[in-house]
Amino acid sequence: MMEEQETLLHEIIAAIKNEDTHTLRQFLDEIHPYDMAQALLQLDEDERILFHKLTDEELADLIEELDYEEQQSLLQKLGPARGIRIIEKMAPDDAVDYLGELEESQRKEIISRLNPAFAADINQLLRYPENTAGGLMTTEFFVLYATDTVERAIQRLRELAPDAESAYYLYVVDEKHQLSGVVSIRELIVAPPETPVEQIMSERVVSVPVDMDQEEVARTMSNYGFLAMPVVKGNQMVGVITVDDAIDVLEEEASEDMMKFGGITGTDAGMQDLSVGPLKSAMGRIPWLVLLLGVGVMAGNIIAYFEDTLDAVVVLAVFIPMIADMAGNTGTQSLAVVVRGLTMGQFKGKDVWRLIRREAVVGILIGLVNGVLISVVAAIWQKSVMLGFVIGLSLSVTLFFATLAGTIVPLIMAKMKIDPAVASGPFITTINDLVGLTIYFTVATLFMQYLI
Amino acid sequence: MMEEQETLLHEIIAAIKNEDTHTLRQFLDEIHPYDMAQALLQLDEDERILFHKLTDEELADLIEELDYEEQQSLLQKLGPARGIRIIEKMAPDDAVDYLGELEESQRKEIISRLNPAFAADINQLLRYPENTAGGLMTTEFFVLYATDTVERAIQRLRELAPDAESAYYLYVVDEKHQLSGVVSIRELIVAPPETPVEQIMSERVVSVPVDMDQEEVARTMSNYGFLAMPVVKGNQMVGVITVDDAIDVLEEEASEDMMKFGGITGTDAGMQDLSVGPLKSAMGRIPWLVLLLGVGVMAGNIIAYFEDTLDAVVVLAVFIPMIADMAGNTGTQSLAVVVRGLTMGQFKGKDVWRLIRREAVVGILIGLVNGVLISVVAAIWQKSVMLGFVIGLSLSVTLFFATLAGTIVPLIMAKMKIDPAVASGPFITTINDLVGLTIYFTVATLFMQYLI
Repeated sequence: MMEEQETLLHEIIAAIKNEDTHTLRQFLDEIHPYDMAQALLQLDEDERILFHKLTDEELADLIEELDYEEQQSLLQKLGPARGIRIIEKMAPDDAVDYLGELEESQRKEIISRLNPAFAADINQLLRYPENTAGGLMTTEFFVLYATDTVERAIQRLRELAPDAESAYYLYVVDEKHQLSGVVSIRELIVAPPETPVEQIMSERVVSVPVDMDQEEVARTMSNYGFLAMPVVKGNQMVGVITVDDAIDVLEEEASEDMMKFGGITGTDAGMQDLSVGPLKSAMGRIPWLVLLLGVGVMAGNIIAYFEDTLDAVVVLAVFIPMIADMAGNTGTQSLAVVVRGLTMGQFKGKDVWRLIRREAVVGILIGLVNGVLISVVAAIWQKSVMLGFVIGLSLSVTLFFATLAGTIVPLIMAKMKIDPAVASGPFITTINDLVGLTIYFTVATLFMQYLI
Repeated sequence: MMEEQETLLHEIIAAIKNEDTHTLRQFLDEIHPYDMAQALLQLDEDERILFHKLTDEELADLIEELDYEEQQSLLQKLGPARGIRIIEKMAPDDAVDYLGELEESQRKEIISRLNPAFAADINQLLRYPENTAGGLMTTEFFVLYATDTVERAIQRLRELAPDAESAYYLYVVDEKHQLSGVVSIRELIVAPPETPVEQIMSERVVSVPVDMDQEEVARTMSNYGFLAMPVVKGNQMVGVITVDDAIDVLEEEASEDMMKFGGITGTDAGMQDLSVGPLKSAMGRIPWLVLLLGVGVMAGNIIAYFEDTLDAVVVLAVFIPMIADMAGNTGTQSLAVVVRGLTMGQFKGKDVWRLIRREAVVGILIGLVNGVLISVVAAIWQKSVMLGFVIGLSLSVTLFFATLAGTIVPLIMAKMKIDPAVASGPFITTINDLVGLTIYFTVATLFMQYLI
């Protein structure tokens, strides 16, 4: 954070602690709700009393910046009657995000007390699944009519005074409320007043269907560099998604990939959120760990199968962790590349083969370098050239295989419409361990006569 | 991608393949440069001839959407003289991104041939490090003067006709070109024409210093939900950063974290980019692998140290991979949580302790569940209750330790200003393997009399 903002934050906090309503009021007129939310979060519960003196509008703006848990705690303090008034002042999409988290009975109770127009908006938005364009959009948007003149359009813009945020692209609809074009404010101001809007608008508008997956929406917006996108149902325009919501989706997606990659399931937003308690957090990790425990026992079985070899040459045990770790690590490297690329929408068509070819060459290079290195080290350390050869050969083959497995397994999963991030680190690690150990002991058994 | 866009893409490609200049021209007037770039990328080199017929402006828009390698290949085809004209039509920040990738001699040669005003802009931007606000901003921005009337301001807006993209916030400067406020277009249109701009502007503008790290800039922009932010040097306004560039930074950051987490170094944008060849790709992975090879040998040393124990109870080797894998996996889970949280700017102040406390409890829960499970499995499988006990106890202690290590190591790194993502999966995995094996063999040796 910039020093200036830091200073500001301290000033706000001081004003609140001193219950200096006058200074707080001055800040409120000037600063962004995000700063106010940051100040709130740094205060203890009992120091937050002054926030009750904010207006309903100010509290609505503030609450939009908070996480669900904080929203819940603040609204509870303010009491149900005031809570209703504040929710009515929130942007419909933010209000829906909050209400969507509540128990159904509580949600219905609140909605029944909202004013009917707002309640209708909310009920409509709640029908769209949370992770689709419909769950992301706001229904509070401003449209121009194709047949209006520029003069009339500017007049309506003035009257309805939409937020700056939603008014940089002006979407144009026809008499059936079908999306028919887009015009920028600048194009509107420079055009002669009597021109019909349809003459200056651009007719090709990129829009997204209301049921499109939110990640695809965000990715589309980011590719085009748009600040907003209209959402359509059939040809009807039903909402607008703004870029700040798209950023949240991309961030959430990156958190989710990171968690899955690390072998954690259970929240969409990721376990880095401290409002997730230890029990829920542990529950998100135990399924993979128990599965992997099973795989660990299978690895044990491989070793048990080769117990005669191991009994004859106990020193082979010394290299078990090295083989297992290296196989896992190399696989994880390829996996990181593939999971990230798939998330970013890469590897289409012939790119898949380019990727596999590249990773195969990488696997050979990695295998050669590490194989030669370890064979020299092992030969010197254990004073056996043959042991060095066995270990070097095993590692080379293992690393080549591990690189390919880390590449191909997530690609196959993606093809089968299974989330490739679920081919998470632990999964690939353990698969590669099993294969690595099998290769190691097979090579060792083949050359055993030279090792004893 | 939406079906509609897919169809559009096929139509464009068909027009290009048929050398149907007329249809192509129609598309060009209507579609977004991103779609044109997608069409280009799906064509083979020799099918791209028709692109040469685009105007310089159209090619500049198109080239801004491409990666460096594709930019380079297209510009080379078009020849140096045309290349210069196209670069001059590009947005200065995009032109700098391209020129910054070139060899210094080639870059200087091109800049010397650009028109002097554009060359001066470019040279100024090239002075800012690539990963700072200065490296991200554009110098092509529009400002209002505080003392202008609203009428005059609107007139200037019409005359200078900035792109819709950069004109949703109008920044206001004073006579010394110091940033003094911000006003939205809407506020401008609704205000009486004779009002001075300074009376309607908001005076508190969030700006970023020119040397701020780009990730902090992007994070700030995302926190506030801004579409653009002014960049200042001292109090002078020197540029504007738009949200689309901030999104690119956040995406790049997520790719970078994913690569580091997977144990890959070497590119900022990540190895999922197929323009990175196998040699460079292998070079980014070998350093970690060689280091970890060394650690693998250390793990071997631990086993060698306990060779007597192992010799006496060979069955202990069976559980080596299980202990090693589980330790690594658990550590990776915590690491994913911490790295992602740190990237998102969480865990400040007392949150660090909340996190450590939570992960400690998680570690105990995970340890208990998995420890009890494996002790039962091991006791039945190997028909030895004592062996089950030894293995269960070792695993419990190891998992508790591994969870804490995965949490604390990256936090310490962050505190020491080392990138915590460098405490990558392989690193934590291997540390935890060493500790896990040590715990395992120590416990086994302690209880050895009951195992033989």
